Amino acid sequence: MVEQTTRYGLSTTVGLPFGEAVARVREEWAKEGFSILAEIDVRGTMKNKLDVDIRPYVILGACNPPLAHRALSAEPDIGVLLPCNVVVYTAGETGKSTITAMDPEAALALADNDALAPLAREVKDRLRRALTRVGEANG
Amino acid sequence: MVEQTTRYGLSTTVGLPFGEAVARVREEWAKEGFSILAEIDVRGTMKNKLDVDIRPYVILGACNPPLAHRALSAEPDIGVLLPCNVVVYTAGETGKSTITAMDPEAALALADNDALAPLAREVKDRLRRALTRVGEANG
Repeated sequence: MVEQTTRYGLSTTVGLPFGEAVARVREEWAKEGFSILAEIDVRGTMKNKLDVDIRPYVILGACNPPLAHRALSAEPDIGVLLPCNVVVYTAGETGKSTITAMDPEAALALADNDALAPLAREVKDRLRRALTRVGEANG
Repeated sequence: MVEQTTRYGLSTTVGLPFGEAVARVREEWAKEGFSILAEIDVRGTMKNKLDVDIRPYVILGACNPPLAHRALSAEPDIGVLLPCNVVVYTAGETGKSTITAMDPEAALALADNDALAPLAREVKDRLRRALTRVGEANG
């Protein structure tokens, strides 16, 4: 089940271990036209930089190139709010993972630019479909 | 001069060509404790995926690990709004570049979590200092 758990994110928790959840996100996001342009291993970064242990946690930077191109053409600085991140981390229960995608309508609303609203809506529709399909996976 | 040109960004335009501006951003951000965890070549992506030509444009994903760790501890899903992006692109005039950093106060305000407000303020102070120093460069 996909839920708007915060004002800025759409989230689901699935019965998949971390690595499989990340792989499923990549597959389902690709079906909606998103390329993963950046991958940040947050756990590894915290271990390397601070020597602290956190749960497995990754930030994937997802970009739908045609929609990103239209957004950047409408507003050059909008790149600071791109790509559209999706995070994956281990949930409290063993063998479960939480996947949360940035709500593009919430983020792009900061720009207060009418040209961006339909793009944000289309991105959100695509993310919701991808997240719903990932959410149907249960190992 | 550093300006709040949009509700979501702090910006400056400098008399440096694109490559030098990117290098200066990396140096000055490092002095404020930021690591660049992701670099997205937006121009290259648009060329490869869409075969369209845009100006040189890069998104750098900057992370201050101690502050990011505190933010993630306060709110796990906040990772969708991290890292704190800074974009660099060629300005209209030859030999000039524009640098815009995400305003962390604007972005993290979406979370409506009191624990994040002081962290956002500290990140913003650091970004403003780094951006001011870059803005003082004029080739």
